[in-house]
Amino acid sequence: MFTSETRLTVRYAETDQMGIVHHSNYPIWFEAGRTDFIKKVGMQYSKIEEEGFLLPLVELECNFKGAARYEDEIVVKTSLKEITYTRVKFYYEVFVGESTKPITTGSTVHAWTNSLLKPVNIKKHAPHIYDLLKAAIE
Amino acid sequence: MFTSETRLTVRYAETDQMGIVHHSNYPIWFEAGRTDFIKKVGMQYSKIEEEGFLLPLVELECNFKGAARYEDEIVVKTSLKEITYTRVKFYYEVFVGESTKPITTGSTVHAWTNSLLKPVNIKKHAPHIYDLLKAAIE
Amino acid sequence: MFTSETRLTVRYAETDQMGIVHHSNYPIWFEAGRTDFIKKVGMQYSKIEEEGFLLPLVELECNFKGAARYEDEIVVKTSLKEITYTRVKFYYEVFVGESTKPITTGSTVHAWTNSLLKPVNIKKHAPHIYDLLKAAIE
Amino acid sequence: MFTSETRLTVRYAETDQMGIVHHSNYPIWFEAGRTDFIKKVGMQYSKIEEEGFLLPLVELECNFKGAARYEDEIVVKTSLKEITYTRVKFYYEVFVGESTKPITTGSTVHAWTNSLLKPVNIKKHAPHIYDLLKAAIE
Repeated sequence: MFTSETRLTVRYAETDQMGIVHHSNYPIWFEAGRTDFIKKVGMQYSKIEEEGFLLPLVELECNFKGAARYEDEIVVKTSLKEITYTRVKFYYEVFVGESTKPITTGSTVHAWTNSLLKPVNIKKHAPHIYDLLKAAIE
Repeated sequence: MFTSETRLTVRYAETDQMGIVHHSNYPIWFEAGRTDFIKKVGMQYSKIEEEGFLLPLVELECNFKGAARYEDEIVVKTSLKEITYTRVKFYYEVFVGESTKPITTGSTVHAWTNSLLKPVNIKKHAPHIYDLLKAAIE
Repeated sequence: MFTSETRLTVRYAETDQMGIVHHSNYPIWFEAGRTDFIKKVGMQYSKIEEEGFLLPLVELECNFKGAARYEDEIVVKTSLKEITYTRVKFYYEVFVGESTKPITTGSTVHAWTNSLLKPVNIKKHAPHIYDLLKAAIE
Repeated sequence: MFTSETRLTVRYAETDQMGIVHHSNYPIWFEAGRTDFIKKVGMQYSKIEEEGFLLPLVELECNFKGAARYEDEIVVKTSLKEITYTRVKFYYEVFVGESTKPITTGSTVHAWTNSLLKPVNIKKHAPHIYDLLKAAIE
């Protein structure tokens, strides 16, 4: 199973008045990890969209165990958990610096759709995309 | 059980290149709903923080069933699902206009902490806050 | 000259670790004001985009004189300052509650483009849109 | 004059329904550049805040000349334009990839304040901070 590592620096705008990163940023960091994961397995997500396929979210889950702060160096570890002809599920772990204990973990489930947001069978319509991701899970 | 209704208009900045509201905005809309819910049951969340108590997120779940678009009128229905001495769980349904079918549902679990983000027993430290919320669930 | 008034409640996610609204939210509030202004003069901006015209930003200016805080009730006053065949300029004042002293003022200059982001003469291509906005300035 | 270069990858959440980066992200990218600039001249902005000094914005200006898109590699070039005992002014240029023509330029003016957001003379209260930044402009 391939796991990508994506590095980010916490932005001031991402903090809130508790002095920590606002929770709504983690889905955005997950997405940065997912973008990087797909690129590293061999195809930019931009290109997938250019071919007419989208991956809107169906489910999002986050578990918060610790906090990140302004200027912290963040590592997002992303892996692909499941893939079917119609859906994909990614899993994420977010770390501060070189810590081995994630501050946040989470997952996202996505549906394959065409550019009009109608569900499609990706194996049928774009087997090269299905096969590329399938290979990253095995 | 009390359910609050909070109205929002979709902002252009909330859309993404799929032409729909980016999923990272739903946790922010949930929060707007939660702010409104707490205010309507009788105490502004700002005041709770001034008393030295915070409610950071522990868990977040979203289920996306449909899409919202720029300028859509949004209704967030918020209710309190569970309350213990250390945690609270809110539940949310997001509707476009007067539709009765939510486009997104979700929940958040929060821990009561002091201003240093250390867990506290809210029933012991601020029974008036516990009682206020407890009354909204029954 | 028509001035629209748009009401917002400060969201927790909009605060930063200074305990005030992060400055990057003001352009988003200006946009909420602009959306409301255009709707109130008689045509939703969504419809303008459906007709194939976009209004991307060319210039943005903000002057910060005070701060807004979580749960503050915000009023954005929006007016149209200039309109030519190719550009429009909006002006904004942001108030907390019923205060008469704005905490932030600003302006945005926009260019009329087609859906491919190429500049267009709006008077020529969509005189009804030009005339509608022109009337709001006089 | 020192100029820092900060690299970012455009996030999906930063796009809008025009298919380009929403303008409200540029102030956030300027801030990422500013954070990096201050760190590179020798002192993390986090540490400045820990010493009790803040740098809230007084003015923001952006000029948009082109667009950035999802997954674009962005370079933010940041320099310090002016420094007085009470204010600092930064200047920014944003590039896509290795292009030499900026898509956006801008500036921010900040006031030195204490942790209660009251203006302070930084030369008097923290000459080591003033001197560090002053050296980066000469």
